[in-house]
This record gives sequence, structure tokens and C-alpha cells, in this order.
Amino acid sequence: MEPIKVGLLGFGTVGSGTFTVLRRNQEEIKRRAGRGIEIARIAVRNPAKVLAALGEAAGSVTVGADFNAVVDDASIGIVAEMIGGTGLARELVLRAIANGKHVVTANKALLAVHGTEIFAAARDKGVMVAFEAAVAGGIPIIKALREGLTANRIQYIAGIINGTTNYILSEMRERGLDFATALAAAQALGYAEADPTFDVEGIDAAHKLTIMSAIAFGVPMQFDRAYIEGISRLDATDIKYAEDLGYRIKLLGITRRAEHGIELRVHPTLISAKRLLASVEGAMNAVEVHGDAVGATLYYGKGAGAEPTASAVVADLVDVTRLHTADPEHRVPHLAFQPQSLSDTPILPIDEVRSGYYLRLRVADVTGVLAAITRLLADAGISIDAMLQKESEQVDANGQTDVVIITHETLEKNVNAAIARIEDLATVVSNVTKLRIEALD
Amino acid sequence: MEPIKVGLLGFGTVGSGTFTVLRRNQEEIKRRAGRGIEIARIAVRNPAKVLAALGEAAGSVTVGADFNAVVDDASIGIVAEMIGGTGLARELVLRAIANGKHVVTANKALLAVHGTEIFAAARDKGVMVAFEAAVAGGIPIIKALREGLTANRIQYIAGIINGTTNYILSEMRERGLDFATALAAAQALGYAEADPTFDVEGIDAAHKLTIMSAIAFGVPMQFDRAYIEGISRLDATDIKYAEDLGYRIKLLGITRRAEHGIELRVHPTLISAKRLLASVEGAMNAVEVHGDAVGATLYYGKGAGAEPTASAVVADLVDVTRLHTADPEHRVPHLAFQPQSLSDTPILPIDEVRSGYYLRLRVADVTGVLAAITRLLADAGISIDAMLQKESEQVDANGQTDVVIITHETLEKNVNAAIARIEDLATVVSNVTKLRIEALD
Repeated sequence: MEPIKVGLLGFGTVGSGTFTVLRRNQEEIKRRAGRGIEIARIAVRNPAKVLAALGEAAGSVTVGADFNAVVDDASIGIVAEMIGGTGLARELVLRAIANGKHVVTANKALLAVHGTEIFAAARDKGVMVAFEAAVAGGIPIIKALREGLTANRIQYIAGIINGTTNYILSEMRERGLDFATALAAAQALGYAEADPTFDVEGIDAAHKLTIMSAIAFGVPMQFDRAYIEGISRLDATDIKYAEDLGYRIKLLGITRRAEHGIELRVHPTLISAKRLLASVEGAMNAVEVHGDAVGATLYYGKGAGAEPTASAVVADLVDVTRLHTADPEHRVPHLAFQPQSLSDTPILPIDEVRSGYYLRLRVADVTGVLAAITRLLADAGISIDAMLQKESEQVDANGQTDVVIITHETLEKNVNAAIARIEDLATVVSNVTKLRIEALD
Repeated sequence: MEPIKVGLLGFGTVGSGTFTVLRRNQEEIKRRAGRGIEIARIAVRNPAKVLAALGEAAGSVTVGADFNAVVDDASIGIVAEMIGGTGLARELVLRAIANGKHVVTANKALLAVHGTEIFAAARDKGVMVAFEAAVAGGIPIIKALREGLTANRIQYIAGIINGTTNYILSEMRERGLDFATALAAAQALGYAEADPTFDVEGIDAAHKLTIMSAIAFGVPMQFDRAYIEGISRLDATDIKYAEDLGYRIKLLGITRRAEHGIELRVHPTLISAKRLLASVEGAMNAVEVHGDAVGATLYYGKGAGAEPTASAVVADLVDVTRLHTADPEHRVPHLAFQPQSLSDTPILPIDEVRSGYYLRLRVADVTGVLAAITRLLADAGISIDAMLQKESEQVDANGQTDVVIITHETLEKNVNAAIARIEDLATVVSNVTKLRIEALD
């Protein structure tokens, strides 16, 4: 049988990694797919540069600057979109679908924001849109959620799904660095971009979480409803105190089925140092999924990089090659649930989310200050799980000391109300630093 | 659309778990599968007992003692074999296939021993045989290997794939118990069978490993070539010494692509305490897979129990429901590779396997004994990585002490030859205890 022909849009890290992996393992991939998979065309802004980089490896691949020509080429069976962003990428993906082509993409932003439109278009044309590489790089988490755990009523997903921030947090903890220093180190090593906003502010993680949430709970993609808080304002002090209390701080993406809706949130989170998730260090990713039948499962691996991401892209190419002749009604639905069976369960605003809390504040070391604080918490219905105050040795020249309070699970809005009152106390000399704690049970 | 009808053979732990999960989550499962999945018939040796247990939940399900009647029932689309063993189960599975039915099974022994015959029969009839539940319970590791990692040349798999032995080893280490005491505790808690041979001697793990090896490397199932060593002769002393040296001992199933063949082996193994795999405690399972593109990935969860295993069985039922109308040439191949593309790469005998080694022996505490031992190792081309001998305080009344030697990687047959010579030394007063060490790199 003729190889299936792939048109590659973009040739950056993921595009070139896909080319390399597909070429290197072509024999083994063909033995698995039952048919050769061949990159026939590449479209990039600067073809000369790609041709020079590929040298003889280019072989018979057509490299050009006309993206539409690839998407319109009748001989191309699968379009692999590796451009990124939500502008040109969206246009080309929709055009490829309109042309009846199957699409493979690693573009989480595109799917989190325009997924509903894209999947509807794909359904109309009976084509597959595969996107394993969009979440957690080489870890086959989309497949696990969409096919491996279909027996379960999913209860929650909690994931370390951004390697840059996990690397920074690992460095802050292990080497006692502050955020800016750890970020600079990550940038020097290529783990963080020159403009690190997307990663450190949690946007990238929220894109990925939005996709997982839709697949887990059978709801439409609702990136605009996600609560997003990054790590750029995280203080090294809190990492230290958290460790003293038996916790590690991770940037977690959490989506959970709560009583009145679905939680969808990315923020720095304290988790017990004993959890497997807490041991995920450096640029690695891991996703914990809790289902009612299977209990807790965890998926771990490299979440970024040329070849780990290409591993997922090529797996999708194999999936499409294996299954594209199946009638569209009998394939795996894009978002795990049949499109007519999505639920309108709302995404909860952060105020309505329940969590444990870590509160740090600076107080004048005078009689009655703790009593006042604990009374305000009690008045708001918040019970205290633990409190940390290293008495005299921590009292500074101004007679001030840090107090750290760990609360039991409560509503976010209750905590915010209590914090406002605590900050009004004359004996409380700082704002209250608030971090969320997840028991993951 | 009418629900797809399932005939359940056997109603033990997994069968009843499957019934419960399918019933409890039927709405959500239907939204995913696009069609209801209904257990229509159950065949068991004692139908009255099952009917009594189900009570009103039995509803319209036909429960009978005639296994063939279920397998021959024209209205049944999928036969779920939950009997276990390789006798009746094999007959019924082959008969179901001959009748053109799709099959879902959790039976690792059946597939590891008769898989080649069963998959050939399924291919002839164009039916699916799904077996996610056969390996690592609820962890979707078969899907990860067969579909999620298809881009990769797999380098190795190392798995904790037997919960009973992992529970026993965790108890031995944490509570300092000997094997017999830890086994009795596991039996009291239902983590081990009255006759624990299959689990503690590594046979169950070897069945699962055989299946993963075939899928990872594109070779036929070759259970009879697996090297199998259980934990029943493991000494608590070695767990302690290993810990002193920074290792944990786990019963690992390891299959690796080596230079001249494929390693396929189950044995107690020392791994660095820093590895994520080392932190997998109690009855949990985890599988680490290393691919050339993706690097290391790890999959963790419950490897046994009614609902975790049912999670995998029901996922297979959903897979079959989604994909059974696809033409058989364009489905996922049973063993990941196309059947005509299997490789004849041999399974290596254990003598030809390379590994690091932990050697413990008891010696007379006289001058020159260590020099003699290290010379014999050097003569065999074996280099020493570390040595543990807690001098005077460990010398007993007979003037004897324990010596532990950690070697660099070498061939098993070289180590065995060196051990024979070491045991011949007059100053060596015990046999040499040998355990393998895996760097997992």
C-alpha cells in the first residue's frame, strides 16, 4: 500500500522533532500502523532555512512557503499543524478539515479556545482531529482519559502540566532561590522562554487543563471560565514554611466534579510531601486522575521538548492511519463523549470552590493577637488544622513575627471574607498571603 | 440504537465488579460509547448463588450454568471471559471467536500461553480481542504501549505488576518483618491467596510481562522463555543492607531490547531509592516505559481488585462498542504490530543478561579475605561499585562478618562463575546471596 502522505505546517521544535522521529523509526512505525507514514510536504515561512537544515534528509519532501498549497494538496491525507497560536493555525486547520483532511495538532491554545468550532467542523466532514501532543507532551494522557478510563465517573484530575514552572519551583525549593533567580536559571538552560508569561502565569497549564476537563466530564471547552494564578508572586518563604509543615508547593491544574458544578483552576498548591505527585521534580510532568472505579492513577513523563512532543504527534499519525477508514460514527469521539451528549454542568467561579488554605501573616508579638485571628476564622466557620509560630527566636527588632495557619477545607469566599477582617486588625502588620492546599482524596 | 449485548462468563471478583461498574455508570458510559452496553447473560457454575447475590439488580439478566449457551447466543455481541485459567477459558474464547463474537478478557495466563493461537483465530474471523484488564488492573498500560507510544523504539519496560508481592515487600521493609510473617499479614488482609504461589513466585508477573514484551517489541508471546524468580527466599537482611546502600528491593518485571535479543525476566531487583518506581508502596502497581523519543514515562495505579480491574474490562467493552464496525484491517492490531510484521528476535537466556549485582556473603574476619574475593571478581572482569562491611561491631563470636558487594553491570554468567569460585574459598563460610540491580537508564 502507498504510504499515507502528511503535510507539515511549521517546522519549529515540534515540527522538526516529528520529522526526525518519523524518519528514524519509520520501519517500526510502519510495522505498527500497517502502512508507511511519510511527510510529503512542509510549509514554513522560510523554506531555504529548512532546506539547509535538512540537507540530504529532505529527500523528496517539498518544502515551500505556501501554507494553503499544502492544505489544498489532494495527495495529502493528514495535515499536521505545528505552527501554534490561534490565528493562522485556526484558519489552516479549518481549511484542511473543509478539504476533507484529517488533522493532527499539538496546539493547546487553539483547542482550548476554538475547540468547539473545530470539532464541529470535523464532525460535519467526518474527519479525525487528533491532539495527544497538546497536553503533557509525550505522556498519552488524552488517550488514557478518552479511552482508558471510560468506565469511570471521573472525580478529579490534578496535574503538573507545565515543565517550566515545575523546574522553577524545584530549584526554588532545593536551592533556596527566589522566583526571579530561579526563572533566570531556567531561561539560561532553555527551560523558560525570554518572555515567560504564558508559562509562569499559568496560562499554558490552563489551556491543557481546559482540554482535560472537557474530556473528563463531558462538557464543552471553557477556557474563559478557568481561574488562573501563576507562580511569579510566590515567595521563597512560603516554600520553606510549607516544607516545615510537610508540604510541597506545585503549580497544579485541578479540575474536579463538585456538588454544584465543575472546578477548573490553575494555581500554586500545597500537597503532602508524601504524595507521588510531590516527588515530580524538574521539568517533568505528571497527571493524577481519580475515577470512581479505578481509584487514583498517575501518568508521568516529559511534558515538552522536541522528541517527547513528537512522540505524541506521531502516535496520533499512527492512530489516524489505523482508524481513518472507520465510519465516523464508530470512532472514538474527539472529546471522549459523543458530541450530542455533552453536559451543561457549569464551571464554578473560584469563590465557590472548596479547598484547604495556607495563610501567612506578620503580626505584632503581643498577647491576644492569635486569639483575635482564630476568633475571626471561627466566626467565618473556618476550622484550623495546624498553626506555625516559631516563638521568640523569630521575633524581629520590631517585635514582629510570622504566623502560618493551615485551615481545614472551606469555601474560598469564606476565607476571603475572613482575610479581609484579619487584615483590619491593628496587630496584623502585613497582608495575608493565601495559598490553597489539596488533599487529593 | 439497541444496546450492545454482553455475555459474561464467570462472576467472581472481576465479573461482579464489571457488573457493578457497568450498571452504576451506565448513563455516562453510554454518553461515551454512543450506545448502551448491557450485560444480557451470565454463565456461572452456581446460578442460584449469583441470583441470590444480585437480588433485584439481576433484572432481565439471564443467569445460567451453560457456558456454551452464552457463547452460542446469536443476540450476544461481546463475550467477556472472567473465568480465569487456561482450560475452559481457552475453549470458550475460541468458540466465541468462531461464532464471530468480540471477546474481552482479563485472563493474563490465557494470553501469555495461548495468545498466538487466540489472536490468529480472531484475525481469521475479523473480531476484536481486548485485554486491558490482563495487565496492571485499572492502569491503561496496554493502550499506552499499543497506541500511545507507537512513535517510539521501546528500549525497556520495568514494572511493579504484582500487588501482593509489592505489599509484602513494603511490609518487610517498613516493619522489618521476615517473608513468612509479611505473607501471613497479607493473607489476613486478603492481599494474598491461601496458596500464594502464583503471586510470590513471580508467575503472575511473568504472564503480564510476557504480554507487554510482545506489544513493546513486536515479538510473539513467549512465556516459556521468561526467567522467573519470586520473593519467597528473600531475606530481610538484604532489604536492610540494600536500604543502607540507597536502594529498595522490588519484584520487577523487566523486558529490554539488548544487543543480541530481548530480555524477559521477573526477579527481586535493587533500584535506587530516588526513583519514582521505588516510592510505589503497598499493593499499588506501576510500569515504567522507556522509548527513544519520549524518554521515560510511568503509569501508576491499582493493579488488582474488583473495581480497578472492572475499570479496564469496561473500557475494553467501550472500545469494542466504538470500533467494532471498522474494517478489521483498519483497527488497532491486537499486539500493536501488524501480525505479518512480528520479529523473530530471540528472548535471551538469563545467562546472557547484563545487570548490576548485589552479593552478600559471610566471611571469616581474617586478613586477606577481601583481597581474595575482589581478585576473583577482577579475574572474571567484574568491577566493584561499592562494598559494605561494618567492621568490628558486626563480627560475631565465631569471628565472622557479612560482606556486601555492589558490582557494575556485567554478564550474569560471569557473575555466576565468579560466585562459584568465591564460594570455594575457605574463608567464605556461607553461600553467596545474589540479587540484581537495575539502573533503569
